[in-house]
Amino acid sequence: MSATTPQQWHDRFDRLRSNKAFELLVITIIIISALVIGVKTYELPLVTGRIIVFLDWGITFFFLSEITVRFLGEKEKKRFFHSGWNIFDTLIVVVSLIPIEDSDLALIGRLVRIFRVLRMVSIIPELRTLLNSLLAALPQLGYVMLMMFIIFYIYAAVGSTFFAGINEELWGDIAISMLTLFRVMTFEDWTDVMYQTMAVYPLSWTFYLSFIFLSAFAFLNMIIGIVVNVLEEEHQRQAKEEARAAGEPTLGELQDEIRGLSALLQKHVGAG
Amino acid sequence: MSATTPQQWHDRFDRLRSNKAFELLVITIIIISALVIGVKTYELPLVTGRIIVFLDWGITFFFLSEITVRFLGEKEKKRFFHSGWNIFDTLIVVVSLIPIEDSDLALIGRLVRIFRVLRMVSIIPELRTLLNSLLAALPQLGYVMLMMFIIFYIYAAVGSTFFAGINEELWGDIAISMLTLFRVMTFEDWTDVMYQTMAVYPLSWTFYLSFIFLSAFAFLNMIIGIVVNVLEEEHQRQAKEEARAAGEPTLGELQDEIRGLSALLQKHVGAG
Amino acid sequence: MSATTPQQWHDRFDRLRSNKAFELLVITIIIISALVIGVKTYELPLVTGRIIVFLDWGITFFFLSEITVRFLGEKEKKRFFHSGWNIFDTLIVVVSLIPIEDSDLALIGRLVRIFRVLRMVSIIPELRTLLNSLLAALPQLGYVMLMMFIIFYIYAAVGSTFFAGINEELWGDIAISMLTLFRVMTFEDWTDVMYQTMAVYPLSWTFYLSFIFLSAFAFLNMIIGIVVNVLEEEHQRQAKEEARAAGEPTLGELQDEIRGLSALLQKHVGAG
Amino acid sequence: MSATTPQQWHDRFDRLRSNKAFELLVITIIIISALVIGVKTYELPLVTGRIIVFLDWGITFFFLSEITVRFLGEKEKKRFFHSGWNIFDTLIVVVSLIPIEDSDLALIGRLVRIFRVLRMVSIIPELRTLLNSLLAALPQLGYVMLMMFIIFYIYAAVGSTFFAGINEELWGDIAISMLTLFRVMTFEDWTDVMYQTMAVYPLSWTFYLSFIFLSAFAFLNMIIGIVVNVLEEEHQRQAKEEARAAGEPTLGELQDEIRGLSALLQKHVGAG
Repeated sequence: MSATTPQQWHDRFDRLRSNKAFELLVITIIIISALVIGVKTYELPLVTGRIIVFLDWGITFFFLSEITVRFLGEKEKKRFFHSGWNIFDTLIVVVSLIPIEDSDLALIGRLVRIFRVLRMVSIIPELRTLLNSLLAALPQLGYVMLMMFIIFYIYAAVGSTFFAGINEELWGDIAISMLTLFRVMTFEDWTDVMYQTMAVYPLSWTFYLSFIFLSAFAFLNMIIGIVVNVLEEEHQRQAKEEARAAGEPTLGELQDEIRGLSALLQKHVGAG
Repeated sequence: MSATTPQQWHDRFDRLRSNKAFELLVITIIIISALVIGVKTYELPLVTGRIIVFLDWGITFFFLSEITVRFLGEKEKKRFFHSGWNIFDTLIVVVSLIPIEDSDLALIGRLVRIFRVLRMVSIIPELRTLLNSLLAALPQLGYVMLMMFIIFYIYAAVGSTFFAGINEELWGDIAISMLTLFRVMTFEDWTDVMYQTMAVYPLSWTFYLSFIFLSAFAFLNMIIGIVVNVLEEEHQRQAKEEARAAGEPTLGELQDEIRGLSALLQKHVGAG
Repeated sequence: MSATTPQQWHDRFDRLRSNKAFELLVITIIIISALVIGVKTYELPLVTGRIIVFLDWGITFFFLSEITVRFLGEKEKKRFFHSGWNIFDTLIVVVSLIPIEDSDLALIGRLVRIFRVLRMVSIIPELRTLLNSLLAALPQLGYVMLMMFIIFYIYAAVGSTFFAGINEELWGDIAISMLTLFRVMTFEDWTDVMYQTMAVYPLSWTFYLSFIFLSAFAFLNMIIGIVVNVLEEEHQRQAKEEARAAGEPTLGELQDEIRGLSALLQKHVGAG
Repeated sequence: MSATTPQQWHDRFDRLRSNKAFELLVITIIIISALVIGVKTYELPLVTGRIIVFLDWGITFFFLSEITVRFLGEKEKKRFFHSGWNIFDTLIVVVSLIPIEDSDLALIGRLVRIFRVLRMVSIIPELRTLLNSLLAALPQLGYVMLMMFIIFYIYAAVGSTFFAGINEELWGDIAISMLTLFRVMTFEDWTDVMYQTMAVYPLSWTFYLSFIFLSAFAFLNMIIGIVVNVLEEEHQRQAKEEARAAGEPTLGELQDEIRGLSALLQKHVGAG
């Protein structure tokens, strides 16, 4: 029996990593881990509880070996930690390994186990691109969100200045006032909030109505901004694809051909 | 009187099936059956109750004969059951025929009678295409819906881990927690849910706000996805139609003509 | 002083009718009539009440004379009643003239006076076109609305069959059930409705969730349908305008020119 | 030491005004002033209160000197007050300078300090353009908003005529009725309002449903109007940019070239 060189080991891990069956196995284990999390929220007989503890350790060790395979299969070890998803996966696995008994830390342990469901996103490429496109849309909203924050901040400052005495729980300080304004923006029992302050300041409906109009208008603007952006990108992408797929010449190419003809003709005229 | 051959019978049924007046009669009977269903939900004098039982059997037997006509009018009997709508129609009629007295089964009998209204969709072609286009839009939403399910699942797991002790009815297990989260997503008394958990965990507003933002953002993304898709399809369809309708040549055709000219000229130059 | 012929009278009325100042006067009177309606909803001292009765008769007689002017200014008297707005205006004025004392009829008299505000729409052309475009968008929604009605009808029939015993006020008959379903569709305290039936049928959440998804999806489809329609119309209209404005030749015209060239060349080749 | 001429002073102020570091300093001071406003809404120990009063005066004097710098740096002093933002900034600073003790005026003093946060918008150019584009979208909505106001006014008049006796607080006069209708439009406990009037007028659900459909339809129309407008503008802008960027010839230019060819050929034919 010949010894396997490190290079051969590396190739084996690399092949395993890109194996379709291996990927399906990983997804199955993630689904099982999600189900275990769900089952744990029900009241369980003692036996099921034991099976779950056993399953939990099984999942943790499978994830540990999976991440090891992926790490060893990587050619340049440094590049492994350039991907945010790899760091996320490693963290989740490492934290799951720490044995915790204390009740406060136990909650964190449970949280980490819940976040293992997010590994679904790191494994399925379509979900990863979806999340990336969601995140990519955020920065372009920067200024509209700053504007909305300013609107919220000013209204919350005005609200807690005038209404703090009326209802301490809704308008006590600027933070709680912003939460109340968000509630008003979602139209959740906003009239109850309004009728209460209108009993003291009869004109305070102007405060609420102007806020609703301003925030709805800024919100609408944000959505239109995203829609226009997406449509334009789609439009550009498609225009290029269509042109290439159909093999249609561009107007510029047509112009070149006409000019060629003209040159030919002129030479001929000169010759004739 | 000459005997009618099976072929002649078949042709007669086929003609009846595609008869406009017959179709109108079927639609009228469906509307009557819908009205009967509606009337049954009111308290009725005994006489009306009897009329309704009579009408009900009349409708059932009309539907039975209608489906028989359609079956006999079909050339290849096998193809009849390839259409989902035909299977649906047959099932509805067959189940209506079973006499049921038991109270539990009686409810199912009433349900089947209600579903007869859906025959409206199977009869009117425009509604059928509308439903098909609705169903056709679903699969393209697959990954966004999987993403939303993951978001719901993780938040429900976190919610039932932390808040189960606060309100068993809202956060008791992962299933009921997902229902509560759907309620929060529709903004239905979501602040009541939030204020209750904020009394124990003052920072739990972050849980609700991050959930609202994430789900609203994913939802928005889903809608934009559908809109972009519909617009692009419409755009492509129309671009092709316009080009054909106007008889406009494509750029490629223009290029061919210019090249023809060039060839002609070159031959001439060579000849001259 | 020479006598004025009927033709001269007609011309005078016609000129008055299209007079900008006269139109402004009519709009002012309509605004005053709207204000009078608004003021009447407040508790008033006796004197103001008398002024309002006086104003009311003044407005009625002004509208009567205005409609007379418009009628006399019309060349063909028959065409006057071809416009729905003219019939509406005449009806409003005629009904206002009938003196009514009875309390029931008095309410109708007040309603007619309120509808005078709608004369704003009949006078301002921009509002008239806006309303027309709103009405023009309705028929294209026909089938989607029929589909939604079928969804509502089936769910209402199922709802009143199963839940009538649980809450007579919400699910008593099919009409009240449809109102309850509309309430669920607007998310107004829909969880209260759901929790009540879930106490008897624990799985009834499927009824509500499937209804919300179906109706939301059909509603979304309706909106996308309108948006696509509007965008496409706008797109077509603009494409034509752009082409005309820029004086750009069409591809077909270019083709014609190239063919002309080709014919010329061929004749020349033949000649050469 | 040589004396500095007024021109030199002017240039110094102008340079300071456009200095990037100076702008960042202004933004920092605005953020501090916003934080001070926020902190004031919490209950504070006496020492912090004193620090805040001190900070408040510091901010006021910084803003005073900043506006002086900007005014002195302006070449034509008249043009300074042509910008609405400059007037706004000056007003805010001047009003902050007036010492006010009276409790009523003190509230106004606090309001003015809150509005200092809006200086964020006047300083950051991106926010200024965003606000301008928001305001620019308003006038085009003019007629749809007038239409909505008419719908609200008529329904409010009808509502307060019929329902004032049922609930004085919701339908007492036309103003409060319009507020109630806005509440119905946001679906906030609208069924409570409806059930109350349905107890007296069983058909009053038609009032609410027709209002919801009308206002939702007008609202939808408004949004579609904005979206179409934005998309078309974007479309036009991009079409021009694309054409320029790619250096593609227009169809008109191609036509000119073909005509040149034709002329050349015809001259040649004549010559040959």
